Amino acid sequence: MALIDRLKLPAELKELSYEQLDEVAEDVRKVIIETCSVSGGHLAPSLGVVELTLGLLKVFDPGHDRIVWDVGHQSYAFKILTDRKDRFSTLRQYKGISGFIKPSESKYDAFGVGHTSTSISAGLGMRVADDITGRQRKIVSVIGDGAMTAGMAFEALNNLGHLDKNMIVVLNDNEMSISANVGGFSHYLSNMMTGKFYTRVRKDVQEYLATKPLGNRILHLAKKMEEGMVGFFTPGILFEELGLRYIGPVQGHRIKDVAKALENAQNVDGPVLVHVMTRKGKGFEPAEANPSKFHGVASFDKCTGQSVKLAGKKSYTDVFGETLTELAAVNPRLVAVSAAMKDGTGLNILEKKFPDRVFDVGIAEQHAVTFAAGMAISGVKPFVAVYSTFAQRAYDQIIHDVALQNLPVVLCLDRGGLVGADGPTHHGAYDISYLRCVPNMAVMLPKDAHELESMLRIAEKMQTPCAIRYARGEAGAYDDIPVTPVEMGEPEIIGDGTDVVLFSAGHIFEEMYPVYKELLARGISAKLVNIRFLKPLNAEKIAEAARGAKLVVTAEEGSVKGGAGDEIADILMDNGVLVKVIKHGIPDIFIEHGDHKSLRRLIQLDAESILENIGKHI
Amino acid sequence: MALIDRLKLPAELKELSYEQLDEVAEDVRKVIIETCSVSGGHLAPSLGVVELTLGLLKVFDPGHDRIVWDVGHQSYAFKILTDRKDRFSTLRQYKGISGFIKPSESKYDAFGVGHTSTSISAGLGMRVADDITGRQRKIVSVIGDGAMTAGMAFEALNNLGHLDKNMIVVLNDNEMSISANVGGFSHYLSNMMTGKFYTRVRKDVQEYLATKPLGNRILHLAKKMEEGMVGFFTPGILFEELGLRYIGPVQGHRIKDVAKALENAQNVDGPVLVHVMTRKGKGFEPAEANPSKFHGVASFDKCTGQSVKLAGKKSYTDVFGETLTELAAVNPRLVAVSAAMKDGTGLNILEKKFPDRVFDVGIAEQHAVTFAAGMAISGVKPFVAVYSTFAQRAYDQIIHDVALQNLPVVLCLDRGGLVGADGPTHHGAYDISYLRCVPNMAVMLPKDAHELESMLRIAEKMQTPCAIRYARGEAGAYDDIPVTPVEMGEPEIIGDGTDVVLFSAGHIFEEMYPVYKELLARGISAKLVNIRFLKPLNAEKIAEAARGAKLVVTAEEGSVKGGAGDEIADILMDNGVLVKVIKHGIPDIFIEHGDHKSLRRLIQLDAESILENIGKHI
Repeated sequence: MALIDRLKLPAELKELSYEQLDEVAEDVRKVIIETCSVSGGHLAPSLGVVELTLGLLKVFDPGHDRIVWDVGHQSYAFKILTDRKDRFSTLRQYKGISGFIKPSESKYDAFGVGHTSTSISAGLGMRVADDITGRQRKIVSVIGDGAMTAGMAFEALNNLGHLDKNMIVVLNDNEMSISANVGGFSHYLSNMMTGKFYTRVRKDVQEYLATKPLGNRILHLAKKMEEGMVGFFTPGILFEELGLRYIGPVQGHRIKDVAKALENAQNVDGPVLVHVMTRKGKGFEPAEANPSKFHGVASFDKCTGQSVKLAGKKSYTDVFGETLTELAAVNPRLVAVSAAMKDGTGLNILEKKFPDRVFDVGIAEQHAVTFAAGMAISGVKPFVAVYSTFAQRAYDQIIHDVALQNLPVVLCLDRGGLVGADGPTHHGAYDISYLRCVPNMAVMLPKDAHELESMLRIAEKMQTPCAIRYARGEAGAYDDIPVTPVEMGEPEIIGDGTDVVLFSAGHIFEEMYPVYKELLARGISAKLVNIRFLKPLNAEKIAEAARGAKLVVTAEEGSVKGGAGDEIADILMDNGVLVKVIKHGIPDIFIEHGDHKSLRRLIQLDAESILENIGKHI
Repeated sequence: MALIDRLKLPAELKELSYEQLDEVAEDVRKVIIETCSVSGGHLAPSLGVVELTLGLLKVFDPGHDRIVWDVGHQSYAFKILTDRKDRFSTLRQYKGISGFIKPSESKYDAFGVGHTSTSISAGLGMRVADDITGRQRKIVSVIGDGAMTAGMAFEALNNLGHLDKNMIVVLNDNEMSISANVGGFSHYLSNMMTGKFYTRVRKDVQEYLATKPLGNRILHLAKKMEEGMVGFFTPGILFEELGLRYIGPVQGHRIKDVAKALENAQNVDGPVLVHVMTRKGKGFEPAEANPSKFHGVASFDKCTGQSVKLAGKKSYTDVFGETLTELAAVNPRLVAVSAAMKDGTGLNILEKKFPDRVFDVGIAEQHAVTFAAGMAISGVKPFVAVYSTFAQRAYDQIIHDVALQNLPVVLCLDRGGLVGADGPTHHGAYDISYLRCVPNMAVMLPKDAHELESMLRIAEKMQTPCAIRYARGEAGAYDDIPVTPVEMGEPEIIGDGTDVVLFSAGHIFEEMYPVYKELLARGISAKLVNIRFLKPLNAEKIAEAARGAKLVVTAEEGSVKGGAGDEIADILMDNGVLVKVIKHGIPDIFIEHGDHKSLRRLIQLDAESILENIGKHI
């Protein structure tokens, strides 16, 4: 029986020796690798912080103190070591353990998360609240160096330095976010580590002194000062300047070092930053060798790391990356912007061919969008590729910097709709609604690979802003529907039945097409309108398609509040088509994680449920 | 004739001596004070950068090079000195000169703005675009120290340091944003100025050396090193660490100093930051003495600075501040969060009485919301007061940190709807639509002072998230309508006519009430439903109110796309009330600046236009 299985978790961890904790670390790694090899997940980030997690649990009381994880994708060890070891095999499965931190799942989870860079803000809120309520506990926010590049983290550090509260920020520095970090800040961190900064200052001092009368004598003694000076120049000056005490760097895979540093940090008066160096993928050779590939994985062979995913159809992401690469070959002014997600969004495909035309700005969606706006106003054509859920971070920039100035930026929103195992923090549920109200913004909703490709070609020629919203996973392809050219604002109309008129927005077509065929099979006079565009949209055609219908049915994989269904209903009303409209979409609740099929069924957005609902109205 | 009136602007500025430029500076100040005393505006920020603007225009060619202003409220001198001197008296008036930077107004305006902290991102985008297109020009982003505290500026600096492009960032440091700055960063800046950092390092070195055998001898020589060391420790280390060269500090009211620093910056290879010290309100004594009050002003006496605004009714902002103060007196766990807008949002009223319960986090809406979420999860009740338009910056945090965790944060959205003279960057047009699709979020739309007060009291007791959205300016009061208690989700129904049913959402009641009365006067059977709540909303009552109606009319001062009108229409449809619905709101275009009345008329959202529209349908 493994040591971990003999312990009462998490309490008994405190009583273990460091040698025993090392043993537990190995046990935890086995559980993580075992589970992820079957169900996939954020393997590399979680393997990287096993010792850090044990250090935290050695020093703090996770049921009372608050350990605030950032992003949460590195929290597997924490979940296993607090209260979810036995259920851990259900990771990311429908009704199973969440892949992120979720207070409703466990009292040990301090603050729900999934997006990056929130932990210092949330932790500081808790700290301030404790002052008001008189509660005594430690607050520790654990944030990665990648997450630290987002502006929100800087805002929080700035406020923390000002409020000067007792609080610990653990900087988990693995020199990566999802792929290698970029930016002045990570440059700062790595310089710090290699001592380049110190070297530069020394060189500058020496050069200066060489010009002075007493220079050589001082130089001689300056060498003796070096030992002392190292402490003042090396790590932490940036954090110290913002008002935090700096402790580190700490070797993050030595539990004892981590624990000692945290103990020291506890005794500091005011905010303190503990800088812990870790290695992403630690302890699983394939992941250490390729941490970016193993950041988030599907199932794999637990010995070799070989992916066991079968080759499937092309994903929307592939279609996007390939089409953009084709367009870039013709248009030398086409560029792409990524916010630390080149691989996930397919921009790696473009980068292979045109490395100078892909700009990865780090985890910085706000900057990404306005940076693109600056390019657009100067005659370059930027495509900003970002997951729908993360575009929420740039909402103001989309309105204020892109749409208001009517600049030809193309927003490529991947992972629109339900994303499956990543769950509520990651579903792209709101994009149609929050973009619909933005003036000047064209919104395109491809139903399949062909339409995505066509829409990218349309977008490339546009002189005004647009967003293209597509799904995670395989791009649809419909061999039994004649391919028609995609034209701005024009819907695709399939069939000419008149009693039931179906309106489908985007990739939900994969449910609506079977609905349509089933209605026909049942002898019902039906028509299917694939709207293709949310706006602009040929209102006359939409109204005409529904005129005389007994029932209109809309569907989209997005919020029913303010989405495509509302747009269709508005158009019908404004054009004098007074007809019963029933709308299908993501209901006004947060949707849990799980496989896509289960989730669609759960919210009655699958073909069967839609048919059933139609049956109630005809 | 003043010197400024004898010049061909902006070209001839380059030919003037520094003495003559000083004379022009005085001329410009007169124009600014003259105009603002009549039409109001951002007086203090604009007075503070007159010399800086002249320095920029002396060194750069504003028609070719790109001077990218941040916020734009400090750009009056720039507008006057480029091409808008003659039209400047129309500042902020309907069809007049915008109060912000607007490329459609002038070729000298490089990038449209109104919100803060976008200039480095936009400038960097231009710089990168120029590399691609081969265009040769200088890019200068001018950003305030307040704007620098927003995360977006940090994201941009981080990216600029990484890309290492030739570009100049001018840090306009007046030690204020709108009111005094807060945060570790501004602390850093002021420490930099007073040399505290250097002093601390020296002390640390001395203490360290005192413990060493050779210490005293080294100490003696270390003093001789001081002169050399100052250069390495004083200003700029934070920027240098992010990869920018630092030049400064520069006395920002000496045009020659500014120009020389900019000349030097031009010759630096790679990004450079020029740190310019200015004084907000410079040259107008009342504004220098009280720069916060004179940040943005209504008309005033140009000699004394005395406001000429007549005392009016209480504003929504006043009602908010006063009610919150009352609630705070009873609930010791009530706190408020501001993002550098205490005065504008009315939190100054609360702060006077409970200074420890108001947290001003700086220009940092993202952090503000998640900081509040952290407080809420720890048992404290936070009210986040922010202008509607700026809440767009925190959209992801509202969804991901507040709503998803169902935390009792109260979002108090001031300046919902049209804001008048500040124009398109500042209208709160999208909030109803972008909040409507957020699960768990209650949204309240008070029609008057009484309802705002009641809703704040309801919010204070809630255990889940809510947003209260109210308007700029005077809070309505309707003496001829019986005051009814405000209950969660319940609409207020006025009258019992059945043919035309009016639904009013929020403060647009001030137009809808006259519409209702006029319909009655014309003998039309009408009813007026003030919905009070967007969600939750008693659907049965809404449907019942409209059942049998010949026409339903909705109105809101928010986007027609996805707003309250859509919600009403959805409810009617879902409840079997099939009736013609006509919706009034802000159309799907950006609305210019101007007085509120003209703008309502422009978009046909005034009582007269609504009546006219109704007339077409009955």
